[in-house]
Amino acid sequence: MKSQSSSWSRIQAKNIPTTLELDLILNEYTFPGCKILDIGCGSGKASNLLASLGFSVTGVDINTEALRMAKSSSESQNCLQIPLFIRTDARALPFPDAAFNVVIMQAFLTTIVSKDDRARIIREACRVLEPGGYLYLADFGQTWHSKVYRERYINDLPVTKEEGSIVAYDEGTEEIAYVAHHFTEKELVFLLIDNGFEIEFFKRDEFVTRTGNRVNGFVVMGEKR
Amino acid sequence: MKSQSSSWSRIQAKNIPTTLELDLILNEYTFPGCKILDIGCGSGKASNLLASLGFSVTGVDINTEALRMAKSSSESQNCLQIPLFIRTDARALPFPDAAFNVVIMQAFLTTIVSKDDRARIIREACRVLEPGGYLYLADFGQTWHSKVYRERYINDLPVTKEEGSIVAYDEGTEEIAYVAHHFTEKELVFLLIDNGFEIEFFKRDEFVTRTGNRVNGFVVMGEKR
Repeated sequence: MKSQSSSWSRIQAKNIPTTLELDLILNEYTFPGCKILDIGCGSGKASNLLASLGFSVTGVDINTEALRMAKSSSESQNCLQIPLFIRTDARALPFPDAAFNVVIMQAFLTTIVSKDDRARIIREACRVLEPGGYLYLADFGQTWHSKVYRERYINDLPVTKEEGSIVAYDEGTEEIAYVAHHFTEKELVFLLIDNGFEIEFFKRDEFVTRTGNRVNGFVVMGEKR
Repeated sequence: MKSQSSSWSRIQAKNIPTTLELDLILNEYTFPGCKILDIGCGSGKASNLLASLGFSVTGVDINTEALRMAKSSSESQNCLQIPLFIRTDARALPFPDAAFNVVIMQAFLTTIVSKDDRARIIREACRVLEPGGYLYLADFGQTWHSKVYRERYINDLPVTKEEGSIVAYDEGTEEIAYVAHHFTEKELVFLLIDNGFEIEFFKRDEFVTRTGNRVNGFVVMGEKR
């Protein structure tokens, strides 16, 4: 399973797991007029929230239907700013270097099954940030203390081929909907520092998934070196 | 470095890192008359606190001077119960099976450099617990987001031979005082479930070390299967 971007481009928007709530730490890194790029914006929940606060937001995703939902909800929300939603692949962003002050990435890397692609995406996020700009990254952590996740990490390994990854099945067809990766702290830290960032802020958190499971999470602010 | 129990038996009691504060979760697993074993009790801070609450406490350690301090502070503290302090090796406890209701182990496994010894110690803790009894375990987690720890894990590897371990030096002589291991969640979880316990409670925490560094920590309640 080298890339699953095609499955994410086809998945029905209503089946895309809802994004996490934004952590308040982000407030400390934004400012009036701040240009924010939301990578893997899905149906635009975070993008629209940030636009409603007056920031200049661009949301990118690979899923056309999700982007359509994002646009229609931004129109109905009376955003102070209307976000720009663009369909693109996060591995090759159509933006010049240093075009943004802040990049956000929420529960997005978890959907990238190739380690190489994860590194490319972080390097792209770094490239489009101004020097000294910040990456806000919130994602799932490996949750070995949970019997449910522990067994999934082990049982799904023949399919995922990567420790800490799980398979999510379509509820109707029972077919594989997507693979999600949960990170170790070491893995996430080196993904950032090996690809252009310093760790500026790091918080171990706990998230609740769409199915109600409690799962470890990380909220990280990386500063472009 | 197969065992460092000899260095811990000789280290000056004043140089033994102070124990962590007990997490309040322990209250939920203790009861009047509860028999508690404190493994690696050091100078008796937790043992004496628990005895002052009326529990029947036994503290064990390998360091004679620390045990002497533990005894003398219990005498000066007017404990409701006087703890019993015994010098022994945690790998072979001089107690019958099922002798205790609760075992506590605070920042103790971190000092055990051999993986085999860690497993033996957990099996011994399990053996001396009554069926359904609880192990309270608080210990350090690998803290990769911290530049200080990240560099120590990498730089100290030739000495420690184990990822996530660090060398602590004697401030006076600059000689190696001891090696401390920081755990991953996966490592700590399997150490318990492979050696007789279910995970009953699991909390990711942050501790402050004697030198003021912030470090990841875990507080775990294991239930004897």
